[in-house]
Amino acid sequence: MFIRLFPAWRWLKDYTTADMQNDTIAGIVFTIMVVPQSLAYAMLAGLPAITGLYASVLPSVLYSLFGTSQTLAVGPVALTSVMTASAVLPFAVSGTDQYTTIAILLAFLSGIMLLVLSILQLGFLTNLLSHPVISGFISASAILIILGQIKHLLGIQAHGNTLIPLLNSLYVHIKSTNIVTFLLSIISIASLFLMKHYFAIILGRLGFSEKMVQLFDKSGPILVLVFTTLMVANLSLDNMGVSIIGDVPSTIPKLNIDAIHINILEKLLPSAFLVSIVGFVGSVSVAQTYAAKYRQDIDPNQELMGLGLANIGSALCGAFPVTGGLSRTVLNVDSGAKSPMTGIISAVFILLTLFFLTPLFFYLPTAILSVIISVSMVRLISLQDFCNLWYFSKREAILLLITFFVVLVEGMETGLIVGVTLSLLFFLWHASHPHIAIVGRFPGIEHFRGIQRFTAETNTHILTVRIDESLFFANARVLEDRLKTIVFQNADIKHLILMCTAVNMIDASAIQSLEKIVNHLADSSIKVHLSEVKGSVMDKLEKSILPGILTGEIFLTQQKAIQTLEKTFNNTPETIK
Amino acid sequence: MFIRLFPAWRWLKDYTTADMQNDTIAGIVFTIMVVPQSLAYAMLAGLPAITGLYASVLPSVLYSLFGTSQTLAVGPVALTSVMTASAVLPFAVSGTDQYTTIAILLAFLSGIMLLVLSILQLGFLTNLLSHPVISGFISASAILIILGQIKHLLGIQAHGNTLIPLLNSLYVHIKSTNIVTFLLSIISIASLFLMKHYFAIILGRLGFSEKMVQLFDKSGPILVLVFTTLMVANLSLDNMGVSIIGDVPSTIPKLNIDAIHINILEKLLPSAFLVSIVGFVGSVSVAQTYAAKYRQDIDPNQELMGLGLANIGSALCGAFPVTGGLSRTVLNVDSGAKSPMTGIISAVFILLTLFFLTPLFFYLPTAILSVIISVSMVRLISLQDFCNLWYFSKREAILLLITFFVVLVEGMETGLIVGVTLSLLFFLWHASHPHIAIVGRFPGIEHFRGIQRFTAETNTHILTVRIDESLFFANARVLEDRLKTIVFQNADIKHLILMCTAVNMIDASAIQSLEKIVNHLADSSIKVHLSEVKGSVMDKLEKSILPGILTGEIFLTQQKAIQTLEKTFNNTPETIK
Repeated sequence: MFIRLFPAWRWLKDYTTADMQNDTIAGIVFTIMVVPQSLAYAMLAGLPAITGLYASVLPSVLYSLFGTSQTLAVGPVALTSVMTASAVLPFAVSGTDQYTTIAILLAFLSGIMLLVLSILQLGFLTNLLSHPVISGFISASAILIILGQIKHLLGIQAHGNTLIPLLNSLYVHIKSTNIVTFLLSIISIASLFLMKHYFAIILGRLGFSEKMVQLFDKSGPILVLVFTTLMVANLSLDNMGVSIIGDVPSTIPKLNIDAIHINILEKLLPSAFLVSIVGFVGSVSVAQTYAAKYRQDIDPNQELMGLGLANIGSALCGAFPVTGGLSRTVLNVDSGAKSPMTGIISAVFILLTLFFLTPLFFYLPTAILSVIISVSMVRLISLQDFCNLWYFSKREAILLLITFFVVLVEGMETGLIVGVTLSLLFFLWHASHPHIAIVGRFPGIEHFRGIQRFTAETNTHILTVRIDESLFFANARVLEDRLKTIVFQNADIKHLILMCTAVNMIDASAIQSLEKIVNHLADSSIKVHLSEVKGSVMDKLEKSILPGILTGEIFLTQQKAIQTLEKTFNNTPETIK
Repeated sequence: MFIRLFPAWRWLKDYTTADMQNDTIAGIVFTIMVVPQSLAYAMLAGLPAITGLYASVLPSVLYSLFGTSQTLAVGPVALTSVMTASAVLPFAVSGTDQYTTIAILLAFLSGIMLLVLSILQLGFLTNLLSHPVISGFISASAILIILGQIKHLLGIQAHGNTLIPLLNSLYVHIKSTNIVTFLLSIISIASLFLMKHYFAIILGRLGFSEKMVQLFDKSGPILVLVFTTLMVANLSLDNMGVSIIGDVPSTIPKLNIDAIHINILEKLLPSAFLVSIVGFVGSVSVAQTYAAKYRQDIDPNQELMGLGLANIGSALCGAFPVTGGLSRTVLNVDSGAKSPMTGIISAVFILLTLFFLTPLFFYLPTAILSVIISVSMVRLISLQDFCNLWYFSKREAILLLITFFVVLVEGMETGLIVGVTLSLLFFLWHASHPHIAIVGRFPGIEHFRGIQRFTAETNTHILTVRIDESLFFANARVLEDRLKTIVFQNADIKHLILMCTAVNMIDASAIQSLEKIVNHLADSSIKVHLSEVKGSVMDKLEKSILPGILTGEIFLTQQKAIQTLEKTFNNTPETIK
C-alpha cells in the first residue's frame, strides 16, 4: 500500500552513495543538454522561452517521486507544447498575461484530469488512440510545427495554426525576410545536420573514449546555441534585426484566477482532456520502450498519478502542460541516468541556472530555438509507417491518411477527434458485420473448421455455424438476418448448432435476437443448439430466458453435439469440397 | 436490379382484382381508424392537427412503392412527433409560420439523411441503439409525452419539454383548470379504458362475428372522437372554454426557404439525424415483428430508402417527419391489410377526407386528441423490462436507468446521446479488459478448456493462454501487460502458446504489441507459438512482420501444438485442480 502511494520507495530504499555520485554527474550533463530544448518548447507553446525552465523543475521532481519509470524524463515536450498553443490562442494573444494565465490553467486542469483518470482507473480510455491515428497525428503535427517555425527562421511576422492560413501568411510576408536571421538559421541547420552525422566520427578520430563520443554526439544543440549567442552578442546582430530573448522577467508568473471567466474554463476542458490523453499515451509508450530494454515495470495507472502531479507542479511553477518526452528521455539515458534521482538533481541545477545564469540568455537568438525544434521534428514525419500499413490493411492506412489531412487542414484537436471517432466507427462496422462460418469436422480428429477454407465433413440435416464475434447490441439484429439467410439456403436441415468458441460476451440485445431466431426456426421445425459456450457467457445465458425457450441442447463440445445429433439420423456424414 | 430499385414489383406483378377488393375495404376501414391518431400526433408535434392528415398521404404511397414490408403503415408516430416538437421549439414559437417551415425542413433533412444512409449502406449505425437504451428512452419519453398532454386535458396553459419545467409549469397553472374540459377528458379516458377491456365482450354478446369484434375493438378512439365532437357542437361547449380545432387552413403549408438562416439548418442537422435513427429503428423493429409472423423478408437498407422517400414526401405535403409506427401497423393489420396497396388506397381516402370532410373537424375538442395520445402512451412505460435486465445484467439495467433519467430531466436528444455514448464506453471497457484464460486438455479427448472452471491437464514447461477477445487498438497495450504478468507467475515455462479460437480480428496496433511480447519473451528464452488461428486473422498475420519474427510456430490445432511441443520434453502432463 505504501509502495502504491509512494513508488519512489522502491528505488530509494536501496539507494547508495555510489548511485548518488553517478546520478549527480548524469544530472549535470542532462541539465546542460536539456536547456535548449526546454527553452524551445516554451516558445512553441507561445510563452516566454524562460518558462521552459520553470516547467523543468517541480514536474521533474514530482514525477521522480510518484512515477514508475526509472529513466523517463518529464518536462516540456513538442506535441503537448504545440497543443497548448492551439488551445490557448482562441482566448488570448501570445505574450499577454491573459495568455500565460490560461496556459497555467490548462496545465492545472490537465493535471487534475490525469489524477481523476488514475483514481477512477480509467487509463483504458487512452487505448482509444490506435496506431494509425497516432501515426497520422504525429506526422501531420510535425509538419505543422515546422511550418509554424519558418517565420522565426526567416525573422518575419506570420500567423495561423493550420496548413492553409500558415502557407498563406508565409507567402504574404516572405518578402520581408531578415537576411541576417535567415543566414543564421541556415548555418545552424547545416551545423546541426553535419554534427549529427559526422561529429561522432570526428570526435572518435580525435581520440575521445566511446562513452564521451556518445555523450558529445548529442551536444550539437547546446554548442550551436552557445556559438550563435556569442556571435549575436559580439557582432551586435540584434541591431541588424535578429530577434533575441532579451531580459528575463524577475518574478515567476502566477495563476491569476480573477482574469478567468467560468466559460473560458468550460471551453478549455476538451483541450485539457486531449492534451492529457496525448501526453499520457506518448509518455507511457516512451516509458514502456525503455522499461522493456532494462527489464523494468511500468504501471499505467500510477503513471497517470505521476504525470498528473507533474502537471499540477508545472502550474504551481507558472508554466504549461508537461509530459514524458522521447527526446528528453534519450538525453537522460545518454547522460548516464540510472535512477529517477537524476530528475531531482537536474531540477536543482535548472533552479540554479534560473537564479544565476539567466543573464547569459540575453543574446540568445530565438531563430536558433526554432532551428532546434524544426530539426528534431523532421524525424517524426514517417512515410514508412504509412506504406507498412497500406500493405497490412488498406482500411487502417486510409484512417492514417484521413487523420493526417484533417490535422493539417483543420488542426490537431479536430484531427484527433475525427481519427478516434473513425477508429470506433470502423471497429463497430466490423463488429456489426460478424463473420459467420459454416463449419465441418476434420476427418478423423475432433477439430472443426470453416468449410470455405478447409475440406471438412458436414451432415445434410445438421448445420453447424460458428459466429466469429461477441454477441452484443451492435450486431444482434444483423445476426438474425444472417442466420435466417443461411437456414433458407440449406433446406434440409433439422438442427442448427451455433458454435460459440468465438463468442466472448453476450448482452440483453443479443438474447432478444437469439430468442427471435429460436422461435422463428421452431416454426420451421428446426431445433437450435449451442456448443462450446464459454464459462462467462454461460453464466449470462443461465440468467436469461434462453435456456427455457431453447428448442435444442447446450453441448460442452462441438464433437459431443455432432455425435449426439448424428445418432438421431441413419445417414453417414458426407464430405464436401 | 429492377427489384432492388422498385421493390413494389415483387407484389404488384401478382396483384389480382380479388386482392384489390380486399385491400379497398381494408383501406377504408384503416382510414377511419387512423384519422384520430394522425390528428393527435400532429398536435404532439406542435403543428395544426390537420397536418397529421397531410403527413398520411404521400409518405404512405411512397413507402408502399419503395419499402419492403407488406404490412407496415407509415405516417405520423408519437415518438418522432414529440422529437419534432423538441427539435423545432428552440427556433420558433408553436403555431407560427416559422415553426411550420422548420418542421417541414426537419422532415426534408431527415429524408435526405435516410437516403444517404441507404446509399452508403450505413444502416448498421442504427445498431448503436442497444436494447437498454431504447427501453429507457421509450419509457421516459412516454412519461414526458403524457405530462405534456396534461395541459390540454385540463384546458390550461403550460410549457416545458422536460420533467422539472413541466411539473413546475403545471403546478403554477393548475388553479385555472377548465372544469368542462377536465370532465370531458375524464369521461373520455374512462370510456377508452372501459371499451378496451369490455367492448369486445359486449360486441360478442351482441352476436357480432369474431372478425367484426376484432375490428370494432380498435374503434374506441374514433367513437369517442365522434361522440365528443357532437357533444361540443350541440351543447356549444366551445363557449364554455373547451378548446376546439376550428377552421382548417385552405392551403397546404409550404417550405418557405427564405425564412431559414443557414445556421438554423446547421443546428437542425443533429436533431434530424436523431429523428431519422429513432424513427428507422422503431419502424424496422415493427416491420420485422410482422415479417416474422407472416414469413416475409425485410431488407434494412431498402427500408432506409423507403422511409427516406416517405419523409421527403411528407416535406412536400407541408408536414413533419414520419415513420412506420406500431399502433398504425396494428390498425392496418386489423383492418385486413394484405399488401402495401392498402397504404396507397388509404392515402386516396385521406385525400378525399381532406377535400370534403374537414368541416366535420370544426368542433373536435383538442382535449380528446390528448386523451388518445395519453392512453396510447401508458402501455409504453415498462417496469418489467427493467426488472428482467436487473436480473440479467446490473450493468445494462443501470444503463437503462441512466438513459431513463437523463431523458426525463435533460430531454430526449440528450438522453439518447448519453445512452449511446455509455453503451459504447461499456463495450469498449469490456473489450479493453479481455478475459485471458490459462487452458489445459480434457483428459482423453482433444478438447481444451480454462483451468479455472474445469479440471484439465497442463504442462509445467508449456503454457497455453486463450485470449477471449479480438486483438485491436482498444486492448493491444493491455494484452502486453497481462501476458507479461502471466509469464512472470509461471517461472518454469519455455513455450507460450496463444490459442486464438476467440480472436476474430487483428489490427496494426495489436501486431505491434505482439511483436513487443515476442521480443520481450525471447530475452527470457521463452518461445511464443500460435494455435487455432482463424482464416481471416491468418490472412492478416501473413501480411505483417509477425511470421518473420515469431520465435515459435503457428499450429493449425491446439492438440497438434501440445503434441509437438510435449515431444521436446520427457515429463508427462500433470493434472491440476
